[in-house]
Amino acid sequence: MARVVVDVMPKPEILDPQGQAVAGALPRLGFHGVRDVRQGKHFELDVDDSVDDDTLDKIAEGFLSNPVIEDFVVRRVDQ
Amino acid sequence: MARVVVDVMPKPEILDPQGQAVAGALPRLGFHGVRDVRQGKHFELDVDDSVDDDTLDKIAEGFLSNPVIEDFVVRRVDQ
Repeated sequence: MARVVVDVMPKPEILDPQGQAVAGALPRLGFHGVRDVRQGKHFELDVDDSVDDDTLDKIAEGFLSNPVIEDFVVRRVDQ
Repeated sequence: MARVVVDVMPKPEILDPQGQAVAGALPRLGFHGVRDVRQGKHFELDVDDSVDDDTLDKIAEGFLSNPVIEDFVVRRVDQ
């Protein structure tokens, strides 16, 4: 069994209203110095050792993200 | 300027319907071997060097997550 992380983020050129809402609210809460915030999705998958990297990329691209507006990063992590 | 990642996940004992929906759909799409999927939020923050770890923890705990049902991890990453 392996643990895989997939992080899905809006493409840089895509407007990120959620991230902007967070960045805008932080100074009002007394937190200064945060220049930019972007918000995306974080997936943690437990997969059999039979699942190879190519399959993980297909899952990330075809199912966990929308390739038109999002980028993804797949990482195998130590358990 | 530093880049900080905050990953927010449902606590293990909390039901994760989104993650379960993904895990349930993958075999129907022909992807086998994925035992479990959990879905959370991934934040990327650009912060001034003046922002210390204690402040980042307060932002993550008090604003980016709901400590009752979610855990968070703060990581400084190389740009």
